[in-house]
Amino acid sequence: MVKQDSTYEKITPKSNYSDWYNDVLSAAGILDFSYDLKGMFVWLPYGFKLMDSLIKKWDELFEKNGIQKSYFPLLVPLSYCQINESWWDKFKEEGYKVIAGADDKVQGALRPTGEPAIYPMYSKWIRSKNDLPIKMYETVSSFRYETKQTRPLIRDREITNWFEIHTVHATKGEAENELKNHVKIITYLYEEMLALPAFMVNKPSWDCFPGSVGAYEFYSLMPDGKVMENGSANNLGQAYAKKFDIKYKDDKGVDNYCWQLCTGNGARFLAAAISEFGDEKGLILPPKIAPIQLMIIPIVFKGKEKIIFDEIDKIKEELLKQNIRFEVDAREISPGRKYYDSEVKGIPLRMEVGPRDIENKEYPLTIRYGNEKLKIKSHELKNINNIINDIHSKMLKASNMRLHESIKFVNSSKDLISAIESKNIAKVYWCGNQECYDKLIALGEGYEGFGTSTDSKGTGKCLNCSKPSHEELFIAKSY
Amino acid sequence: MVKQDSTYEKITPKSNYSDWYNDVLSAAGILDFSYDLKGMFVWLPYGFKLMDSLIKKWDELFEKNGIQKSYFPLLVPLSYCQINESWWDKFKEEGYKVIAGADDKVQGALRPTGEPAIYPMYSKWIRSKNDLPIKMYETVSSFRYETKQTRPLIRDREITNWFEIHTVHATKGEAENELKNHVKIITYLYEEMLALPAFMVNKPSWDCFPGSVGAYEFYSLMPDGKVMENGSANNLGQAYAKKFDIKYKDDKGVDNYCWQLCTGNGARFLAAAISEFGDEKGLILPPKIAPIQLMIIPIVFKGKEKIIFDEIDKIKEELLKQNIRFEVDAREISPGRKYYDSEVKGIPLRMEVGPRDIENKEYPLTIRYGNEKLKIKSHELKNINNIINDIHSKMLKASNMRLHESIKFVNSSKDLISAIESKNIAKVYWCGNQECYDKLIALGEGYEGFGTSTDSKGTGKCLNCSKPSHEELFIAKSY
Repeated sequence: MVKQDSTYEKITPKSNYSDWYNDVLSAAGILDFSYDLKGMFVWLPYGFKLMDSLIKKWDELFEKNGIQKSYFPLLVPLSYCQINESWWDKFKEEGYKVIAGADDKVQGALRPTGEPAIYPMYSKWIRSKNDLPIKMYETVSSFRYETKQTRPLIRDREITNWFEIHTVHATKGEAENELKNHVKIITYLYEEMLALPAFMVNKPSWDCFPGSVGAYEFYSLMPDGKVMENGSANNLGQAYAKKFDIKYKDDKGVDNYCWQLCTGNGARFLAAAISEFGDEKGLILPPKIAPIQLMIIPIVFKGKEKIIFDEIDKIKEELLKQNIRFEVDAREISPGRKYYDSEVKGIPLRMEVGPRDIENKEYPLTIRYGNEKLKIKSHELKNINNIINDIHSKMLKASNMRLHESIKFVNSSKDLISAIESKNIAKVYWCGNQECYDKLIALGEGYEGFGTSTDSKGTGKCLNCSKPSHEELFIAKSY
Repeated sequence: MVKQDSTYEKITPKSNYSDWYNDVLSAAGILDFSYDLKGMFVWLPYGFKLMDSLIKKWDELFEKNGIQKSYFPLLVPLSYCQINESWWDKFKEEGYKVIAGADDKVQGALRPTGEPAIYPMYSKWIRSKNDLPIKMYETVSSFRYETKQTRPLIRDREITNWFEIHTVHATKGEAENELKNHVKIITYLYEEMLALPAFMVNKPSWDCFPGSVGAYEFYSLMPDGKVMENGSANNLGQAYAKKFDIKYKDDKGVDNYCWQLCTGNGARFLAAAISEFGDEKGLILPPKIAPIQLMIIPIVFKGKEKIIFDEIDKIKEELLKQNIRFEVDAREISPGRKYYDSEVKGIPLRMEVGPRDIENKEYPLTIRYGNEKLKIKSHELKNINNIINDIHSKMLKASNMRLHESIKFVNSSKDLISAIESKNIAKVYWCGNQECYDKLIALGEGYEGFGTSTDSKGTGKCLNCSKPSHEELFIAKSY
């Protein structure tokens, strides 16, 4: 963070994605990795501002959808954890336990996910249909003692800034409608905020969140050709309601188990956007979530300071009117250094204001995405939001295209392997049988069938057993 | 939370403050206490919205003051904790430790305060004067395994929504200036947001935050006559810098230890405001932090629905212009039930809109604080902000007066005891000697000398040893 004022950090070429990713997060002042606990790190001010900017968007979005913010304790009594044994079986191995007191008594677990903290409360709160639906969320840290290699924002032991929505409904139909709504919300965050495609799949039932009856899952294609799970909307059916005794009495006094959903994601959103767009110079942030959308750099000449800063004051006024998030870099260092900082931090627009520009009534404007340079006339400053929208559209179009070009519909094992080994996603017809699935993903090391298409239309032959199939299964290496 | 739609909760008279406090938090939908871990509870949506409203204010305020938001891991390696033994000695007894893995290895402590997580990083980040000042804060949960009786928002085991500012400076003078700034910030939150007096004292040195060289501490006088510590601004001098090796090289290449401050508080702000103003009907929220400032209640008559809701649309437009936080309670339940809900939740203003009011072009407006009823003409709606400011001023004046009337300057042991036992704060001359201090607070059970006046002017005799003294010590029962 602070180092940036004095040194330039070297960024590994993006072809070595893994090192590049760490370099970029560090050079841009997003995270500090030197905290002495594996899988935990420090959010630096610029990084936190970026995260916060995305959090504010989802806060707004959830509130608009009647989903209310709340907070449940970080510690979960073990007795709550054990209520749903299929959940506990999955998470107890990687659970952190908390001890205290003279005898180091176990007080509870640090929550790996929210269900066991939240659902015992839901059980108490719900008596009649009037108490439904409940639509709540929280943005919290979750904890998993990962034994795999950790990777910042992607696989952490403290998963910071994780939102989880937990809704409860009286009927299956209402739950299913709400699930569609959650899908819309995640899709909006992808497309309208992150400029990324919302690549959604159906999860095979054996691969769903423990205890759920179905799930939509979102994936991002990373620069190394692996896919990363990046958000999920889980249909819990009545499974958790039965475990946690979440039920309501209907008009006839009969008990009915409720229908539940849980939908969550977190900083992986950022990991995907950073990975998609960044380059050797640093970040390239999607402008809708950039904490600073425009950096103004005064080109100061001796004796001209007043003219320049007066002009900048006028520009600021115009930008405020448009709700543009901008800053003026008035530090007493070289413009070159300022350009570097603005680039490494991925600030979408950089505008220079010098004496000649003021005379000419137009300012050099550099667009970080694509490094496009143009001049903007002072009377056109009112269109900055259009420029921002335009950048956003171009970024979304490009990321969308990269994803869709990388999906290869294949009908032979050879082509499947070739697609995946050349960093693509293979799509194959599949009969739906787990045995065939297991054989297909055994074709290469680290292959995973991560879901089926939500809009498959045709029919073909299962790539393994040749039976007629209408399921289209995606296979790739995954995180 | 949900229960409120069907039942009325009984609230204990405020003369029994302890029960009243819990009743109010529960009936208003602030917290749920039924979570099965001592000293931990659930923030319900309305409660969290209130907390969030205050957090947004401090976020704004800190940003304006160049104090940047960040996030440090919740787990602290024990090696970091042990760097400052005076800190560790104070906190290790009440520390939660975290274990994980097959062998239940200790991974670290859940942070009781932020220093040991943050300062090892500061040590790495600071090389030269250019890296200074550092002004960062975070809003996090802290954890203390309290063995005393816990009390929601006042003494919790998970202390939620705790802000802590940690700044580092090159010189003592700069640190002291910044300390004044922190005092201003806390004072602003008290007076301008919470409508409470900022009652600040100097801490006796032996009672300061471990390792600090001095502190301003803020206290609130609670309804039971006890004082509650409610925010502190600590001058750490160079003590922590020496422990954590936080230093910079000056122009001559000589190492200098830095000067540090830490300033923090959290939900106790809310506990004080709730306790100060609430009554037997529930909360009375200071309007500047009320998540809903005005509740509109449609008085619906059959066939008149359109007229009423059209008029409400016009009113909403006017309120939006003024950035008033309002809601319309359009539930299909009786107006009486709506009045009850609006009162128990402490919403500052309640406005009814019925057919006759529309004809008369004036609406009944009830002010929760003081239960004042007036009529507001439709063309006066543009003055709602003035009404809000007026409520705020009245509340601040009253809370200020209660505090100052309760401070009794006494010069005999008998008067001291009589003041404290009648739920006041005693103020006495004191020579500054710890021995005298100990004797003074031994005069009654639970008495504590919680600090000295920051603006004492006169000279008197120490109440214990009769030596000439200019220190004015406050003594009361405390939390």
